[in-house]
Amino acid sequence: MRKSVAYLGPPGTFSEEAAILYQSEAELIPFSSISQVVSAVDKGVVGEGIVPIENSIEGSVTDTLDLLIHEVNLLLKTELVLPIEHHLLSQKEVNLSDIQMIFSHPQVISQCRKFLERSLPQARVTPTLSTAAAVEQMMSYPGEGVGAIGTHRAATLYGAHTLLRCIQDYPQNLTRFVVVAKHDHVRTGNDKTSLCLSFSEDRPGLLYEVFQEFAQRNINLTKIESRPSKESLGRYFFLIDLEGHREERVIAQVLKKVELKSSQFKILGSYPRFIPRPENRFGRREG
Amino acid sequence: MRKSVAYLGPPGTFSEEAAILYQSEAELIPFSSISQVVSAVDKGVVGEGIVPIENSIEGSVTDTLDLLIHEVNLLLKTELVLPIEHHLLSQKEVNLSDIQMIFSHPQVISQCRKFLERSLPQARVTPTLSTAAAVEQMMSYPGEGVGAIGTHRAATLYGAHTLLRCIQDYPQNLTRFVVVAKHDHVRTGNDKTSLCLSFSEDRPGLLYEVFQEFAQRNINLTKIESRPSKESLGRYFFLIDLEGHREERVIAQVLKKVELKSSQFKILGSYPRFIPRPENRFGRREG
Repeated sequence: MRKSVAYLGPPGTFSEEAAILYQSEAELIPFSSISQVVSAVDKGVVGEGIVPIENSIEGSVTDTLDLLIHEVNLLLKTELVLPIEHHLLSQKEVNLSDIQMIFSHPQVISQCRKFLERSLPQARVTPTLSTAAAVEQMMSYPGEGVGAIGTHRAATLYGAHTLLRCIQDYPQNLTRFVVVAKHDHVRTGNDKTSLCLSFSEDRPGLLYEVFQEFAQRNINLTKIESRPSKESLGRYFFLIDLEGHREERVIAQVLKKVELKSSQFKILGSYPRFIPRPENRFGRREG
Repeated sequence: MRKSVAYLGPPGTFSEEAAILYQSEAELIPFSSISQVVSAVDKGVVGEGIVPIENSIEGSVTDTLDLLIHEVNLLLKTELVLPIEHHLLSQKEVNLSDIQMIFSHPQVISQCRKFLERSLPQARVTPTLSTAAAVEQMMSYPGEGVGAIGTHRAATLYGAHTLLRCIQDYPQNLTRFVVVAKHDHVRTGNDKTSLCLSFSEDRPGLLYEVFQEFAQRNINLTKIESRPSKESLGRYFFLIDLEGHREERVIAQVLKKVELKSSQFKILGSYPRFIPRPENRFGRREG
């Protein structure tokens, strides 16, 4: 049976690009929300799903984190990092000053905020549910004074005209995607492990004690993030990424100690660190 | 001259409710984005601005944090906590099964996700720029098979019908707002201090050393949050809230030590802790 991978659609999103980079030969199935991608894997409808988890400008994709913490028991199997480039698209060649409305996804709007304030102060911003939907709505709008912020692939798919390339405010814009599945990855020698935990007591000193366990064993933490417990303001889940695989002896030992200090504790998986190939890092993926 | 307070408008948003709770006698001026509220205070157009900074379900309002870290040198003067209640509104009494489209702000949609999947699976979701805009667009839509998720105040302002009250997935839904100004607050004896810092080295052990400085002096941290540095994936700013005022001797000393360990360091202000009055905590504010 052909392998199937769920992604956040419709076609033309960065998630589709990530899915193609991950497994171009698999059957790539679009879903309309991150929650639906994760749920399809959880219910066994598809074998794997690919979702964004972090952007270098915007920070964590909180929908993804919250689903992994609260809703499912899936594991992270792989990570991929993709450069994010936003283009200003239109139906045909127009002057910037003639654009009265801009369609895009709220997170993309926020990543191009300075550009919009500077170059399109007259344009009203209309939020859409995805970058691909933005391009689709823009193309079917009656009248030419409209634009969309979208991907190169969405422009190709919907036949849009590219007015300006790479309009994002920060040039170093990268998104980290993860592949979720029922199992994580075997050891490769260059791995990361993600976990989340919370404390029954509202005492931040407990987090300090957890850090101490890792620091004493020279285990490098690559990320610390807090997410609300959803129970009350000021109570958090902490997400920690560390270097190493959960099956390595030292890591396994410290995880056991940390679990004892936590009221809730969940290993989100061990997986190989993403090492960018030059063409992924700097190149443009066409089509 | 009458005091002026900027807030994230239009009228009918939770930010307006927070502004009324903060200073009902001041001139409350709506702005169309968090960035515009903060910029109005920064340029001296208004004396103070009120913006959401954290929600008990969704987590931090990253726009607010990023503006305070990267864009302006404003200080936090006060915090307020507001219960968030989302209502399903319509033009008139209709059956849930007749609603084909729902307008709301993406964050609100996400806070009512389970309700929408369970009770309105047929309805297409249309994102809007605010909860108030959702109600306005719903009311002016040709046809009655539409709904909006909005506030009690927005329902009153736009004459909408309340179909169902409190449809949010998690009952304990609170938002913390902060008042930003050119100066923070004098000592009151029950204060908090917010700061942010980053490290030039990519070594998470440094954060552990900073925690150690606070732990050794029994200074309680009430919040730790990481935000991307916007320079590269895996480099962060850390936001820390602690108990005490920056002018207290012990706090002032430890802040000096922590500053020496940081490559970038910024005190975001000291301000009184919010103590909910019973009517703010459980009551409904009418009008």
